[in-house]
Amino acid sequence: MRFVSFETKPHAKYSYGIEWDGKIVIIAELLEDTQLVKKPPSSMADFIEYHEFIIPLIYENWSTWFESGLLAEFAVPSESVKLLAPFPRPLREVICLGLNYEEHIDQNSKATGCPYQLPEVPVFFAKPASSVIGSNDYIHLDPTLTNKLDYEIELGIVIGKRGKNIPVSAAMDHVFGYTILNDISARDLQFRVSQFYQGKGLDTFCPIGPAIVDKGEITDPHSLFMTLRVNGEVRQQISTSSMLFKIPEIIAAISEGFTLEPGDIIATATPGGCGYASNPPGFLKDGDVVECEIQPIGVLTNKVKKIDRIYEL
Amino acid sequence: MRFVSFETKPHAKYSYGIEWDGKIVIIAELLEDTQLVKKPPSSMADFIEYHEFIIPLIYENWSTWFESGLLAEFAVPSESVKLLAPFPRPLREVICLGLNYEEHIDQNSKATGCPYQLPEVPVFFAKPASSVIGSNDYIHLDPTLTNKLDYEIELGIVIGKRGKNIPVSAAMDHVFGYTILNDISARDLQFRVSQFYQGKGLDTFCPIGPAIVDKGEITDPHSLFMTLRVNGEVRQQISTSSMLFKIPEIIAAISEGFTLEPGDIIATATPGGCGYASNPPGFLKDGDVVECEIQPIGVLTNKVKKIDRIYEL
Repeated sequence: MRFVSFETKPHAKYSYGIEWDGKIVIIAELLEDTQLVKKPPSSMADFIEYHEFIIPLIYENWSTWFESGLLAEFAVPSESVKLLAPFPRPLREVICLGLNYEEHIDQNSKATGCPYQLPEVPVFFAKPASSVIGSNDYIHLDPTLTNKLDYEIELGIVIGKRGKNIPVSAAMDHVFGYTILNDISARDLQFRVSQFYQGKGLDTFCPIGPAIVDKGEITDPHSLFMTLRVNGEVRQQISTSSMLFKIPEIIAAISEGFTLEPGDIIATATPGGCGYASNPPGFLKDGDVVECEIQPIGVLTNKVKKIDRIYEL
Repeated sequence: MRFVSFETKPHAKYSYGIEWDGKIVIIAELLEDTQLVKKPPSSMADFIEYHEFIIPLIYENWSTWFESGLLAEFAVPSESVKLLAPFPRPLREVICLGLNYEEHIDQNSKATGCPYQLPEVPVFFAKPASSVIGSNDYIHLDPTLTNKLDYEIELGIVIGKRGKNIPVSAAMDHVFGYTILNDISARDLQFRVSQFYQGKGLDTFCPIGPAIVDKGEITDPHSLFMTLRVNGEVRQQISTSSMLFKIPEIIAAISEGFTLEPGDIIATATPGGCGYASNPPGFLKDGDVVECEIQPIGVLTNKVKKIDRIYEL
């Protein structure tokens, strides 16, 4: 199933639902109506927390709901709503892995002059909760802050079950599903200091979406094909089979002494082809359209928009 | 005023209040009773969002409430509750500044071998929302993960008003108040990779508290005296006057293209005297008591507790 968050009008309380046949089934309202669960999850994070109980219920009842017309009753046409990031405001920072594809590590070494070396352990950093936007939202380019705006397609793991010190063998039990991230970076801000937080953390620097696909539909997350295009031109392309640290290892590593929670997003790093590491460098400009495609999740599309530096309250 | 979060019994819904005369006034309930505001803020973050409206109301009515006995009616004895971190679960990551005291930069350079250099711009990183604990909670020491557990006393800025691209001249308008943080680090995890997130991000690695003191009571945050003691022995001691980047500069810097929100916490870095940078090194052991004192905020006290590595759900 494909889970999305959306709003029916700007700044209204947003809902989450399941994509179906060009529509979005507002699953919380449907569950409320059928009274199959006492208290239907009010948010995507809530839903994910109880998904092991609710998803089987949905599968069990889907055809009955279809036949009785209930599905149609609680569905809105996809084109009538605005898609948001699956978690429009995550409950904490987005957990990110750096340096997990050999070609990127090689190109990064050439571009930055740091020695070529495969990491012995995963390198984690954080993107701020406030940097998240959805598909079709604008990526902001403030030329007073950066002239090295760059893209990074990444497969995102969505955690479904709380856990700490998770063994590699149990790691996949903690996965709810997968999504797509574009780890936008201001390379000038990123490389002027040792820590990535600010250079990768500005508002709009974390497009996520268009949907979360649950792991039931992605049997092998290490055989997904990722493509990033800028204005239609392919810039990054790889199979997730090339990841150095595989998903179970990543989950086990970050959960050492660290509690993962339902709704947590872990970005699994980017392959070669980033703008700063290309020859000549290919940074993002005003008006550029960046598409991140990983099927069957879909295409995360964002346009770059030049903005002025304004003191905003 | 001194703002605290607390729970009356373990895992109950927590409340926030104002410390007064050995008691905590449950301000939301008092406001509800007096009907002075339509919808009393249900959480500390909510309160802070509306503080510019509510704090004057409280000052205006305090003596009337005292005389009528209302204060006493809505107060609980401090010793009858468990204090929590001011935000037991922050709405996002804790924003941290590194390298802001010369002595620490010097000692860090000697301990790590990296060249001595004062930073030209503030260096920001993030501690996970999940790492936050309150005063009197245990700092966990899992010896299978680290044998270099270390402390860092820091003054914390609590943001009171949303803002982006905040000019230095307006920065103090965005401050609600101040608190104390202990930026706990596993130095072995921290220094094995370039990014601090994991080595500073384990569960219990971010003690915060014991209270937030609003800026009305701290007229000069750059003349506060900080002292960290381990088992009563002074390890770190400095005046906040030694900060390299002052609070308005820090706020202006992080808010470049980045929206600060009410309830955000910004840690302002630590002075010299950390365990890893001492000679001989002085790391934290099972049973150690760490006290971080910054008056008039108080003392943030945490004991180190050895734990086993267990796969927890």
